[in-house]
Amino acid sequence: MTSAFGFELLSTSGAARRGRIQTAHGDIETPAFMPVGTYGTVKAMTPEELEQLGADIVLGNTFHLMLRPGSEVIREHGGLHGFMHWQRPILTDSGGFQVWSLGSRTQVREEGVEFNAPKDGSKIFLSPEVSMEVQCHLGGDIQMVFDECTRYPATPKETQQSMELSLRWARRCRTAFDELGNSNDGRALFGIVQGGVYPKLRADSLGGLLEIGFDGLALGGLSVGETREERDAVLEHIAPEMPVEWPRYLMGVGTPIDILDAVCRGMDMFDCVMPTRHGRNGYLFTETGTLRIRNARFRNDLEPIQPGCECYTCRNYSRAYLRHLDECGEILGSRLNTIHNLYFYLQLMSRIRSAIEGEFLDAFARQFRQQQENSTVSVA
Amino acid sequence: MTSAFGFELLSTSGAARRGRIQTAHGDIETPAFMPVGTYGTVKAMTPEELEQLGADIVLGNTFHLMLRPGSEVIREHGGLHGFMHWQRPILTDSGGFQVWSLGSRTQVREEGVEFNAPKDGSKIFLSPEVSMEVQCHLGGDIQMVFDECTRYPATPKETQQSMELSLRWARRCRTAFDELGNSNDGRALFGIVQGGVYPKLRADSLGGLLEIGFDGLALGGLSVGETREERDAVLEHIAPEMPVEWPRYLMGVGTPIDILDAVCRGMDMFDCVMPTRHGRNGYLFTETGTLRIRNARFRNDLEPIQPGCECYTCRNYSRAYLRHLDECGEILGSRLNTIHNLYFYLQLMSRIRSAIEGEFLDAFARQFRQQQENSTVSVA
Repeated sequence: MTSAFGFELLSTSGAARRGRIQTAHGDIETPAFMPVGTYGTVKAMTPEELEQLGADIVLGNTFHLMLRPGSEVIREHGGLHGFMHWQRPILTDSGGFQVWSLGSRTQVREEGVEFNAPKDGSKIFLSPEVSMEVQCHLGGDIQMVFDECTRYPATPKETQQSMELSLRWARRCRTAFDELGNSNDGRALFGIVQGGVYPKLRADSLGGLLEIGFDGLALGGLSVGETREERDAVLEHIAPEMPVEWPRYLMGVGTPIDILDAVCRGMDMFDCVMPTRHGRNGYLFTETGTLRIRNARFRNDLEPIQPGCECYTCRNYSRAYLRHLDECGEILGSRLNTIHNLYFYLQLMSRIRSAIEGEFLDAFARQFRQQQENSTVSVA
Repeated sequence: MTSAFGFELLSTSGAARRGRIQTAHGDIETPAFMPVGTYGTVKAMTPEELEQLGADIVLGNTFHLMLRPGSEVIREHGGLHGFMHWQRPILTDSGGFQVWSLGSRTQVREEGVEFNAPKDGSKIFLSPEVSMEVQCHLGGDIQMVFDECTRYPATPKETQQSMELSLRWARRCRTAFDELGNSNDGRALFGIVQGGVYPKLRADSLGGLLEIGFDGLALGGLSVGETREERDAVLEHIAPEMPVEWPRYLMGVGTPIDILDAVCRGMDMFDCVMPTRHGRNGYLFTETGTLRIRNARFRNDLEPIQPGCECYTCRNYSRAYLRHLDECGEILGSRLNTIHNLYFYLQLMSRIRSAIEGEFLDAFARQFRQQQENSTVSVA
């Protein structure tokens, strides 16, 4: 007997929402940031460390995991939870975005997508039904419909055709998801709003998805090359149209300011490789912008990354030590940097949640943006 | 006021010794294995993890650290303890072995050794006095004399000249170490017995070191190409001649069986990169030999590395997961493998200590060797 998926709206502040998602593997406090665990591991981290950092949920990539190690192996472990030893909620994407980013090597048909595996060139077929079956093997608490990520730029006509294909696929996903019996395990299926930068098409996509019915909605087809203004306009226009009672997930976004801005426009869930990838590359987030640890100025710097930061890294290690680890290519450097960056992101979400509850989000956002923007140059 | 360095012999079993080394940073139970922390980090591990694994002491490499980040930076952190956030004992080597392994790029004179830095080719000079000064900056609890590692093979005459140079350098190290005031911090200086594979020269080296006076002794110039029989003969001959009241350190050794054999011949301390390096390369130690995790047979293997093993990795992850992480080049794979291998080594030392105390070392050693030797082929 597993508890059903649910979403509770706790409070609002302007368009921003403070909520709680219930899943069979525990609650997710929103607005939430989801660390990305592409290959069944959030790079360099153990599940215990992620928990200590305050991650309620992690993301797994269907596309990557179906190629390596293959979803059957993961199913034999009782799903991704057992495979990667993570007991809290997991969201799996559909593989659609990754197939799209392969570009010319893919063939899109009504039935699905055929592509050559990046590793060995073997032919692979992915469709709404295949994606849902793989995601069922992975056992994610939140699963995503398989869609086509519309390229940018695209004409209104191209965008409409792509969006309509995604809608037809969304319906097939809904059917496949239900037939696989996911609801018995309290799992949820999210639809993905497409439609590029065209308000009318976004609205049509949303309308189609509402007709099918889902447990939550994502905004897709963003962060694919459009300008910040175009993205903001889409958000501004579509977020208020999304049902209040469903969680809203902005896929693949973004910088701390991007996330904060999107929260202010009413989005609830976010994922991005930025904190982990930047960490491994020695770019560290601070209150006053990004710090590049391999900069020679840190050679003798006995300060922590950010004085006052309570993360494990800042409590115990100097910038000089982190710079040294980075210079020597030491694994511990990747670990300590990742810990700090994830802590920064997850703390930011926690502060955002408090700001919504306390109704001081505007003031918080203004100050945060100012600090980030004023100081990036001087520190980096 | 720091406590003085000391060594207590708790019990013996044949030539094997169960002891305890006291340092200002805590005790070291012997026989002890010291994980290698070349660049101020035991690769992939945090200090807390090392402590949980049962490491009493780690090793730092003077040669590497004087080049990166330089010993001044480390001194500003209050030494290696503060720099790397490790509060238990540290042993620093002298740099002699690493200079030697540079081979033709070094010039050995009476005064010291000149060599080109591997990274940028810049000229660097290392001598007994320089090594002791750098080691003083690093602040190791146990420091090593700067010696010349005699090449193998070498004629008796070459070996004698090299050994005598090492003795003269050992005397200069003693003087420099004392003048730097290390004793006030409860630090210890170990001599290194050289003399190649020649019993008479080993004895002369030992005699010379005893005359100078140290806190412990190491056996150097082994694991440099000699046969196992030659190494065993050196150990067999020289260990009984070493003072009972000083700890005995066999440098750079070795496999689990090498260590066990050396304990049975009366050695107390060991270091080797094998558990950490093998871990990163996917070679995992088990009771029944070494397991190569990237072997395709583990693709669907739901068992832990070694059933019954109590390490974090074996308690939580399958061979299939570890194989997957290895295949994807994931940092977590290096971490989990290193944890298992270090646990295996440190547990072996713990079991050896119990076997000495309980006077069943011979039986333990026989069984352990048999299991390791019989099964390596079948598992690897």
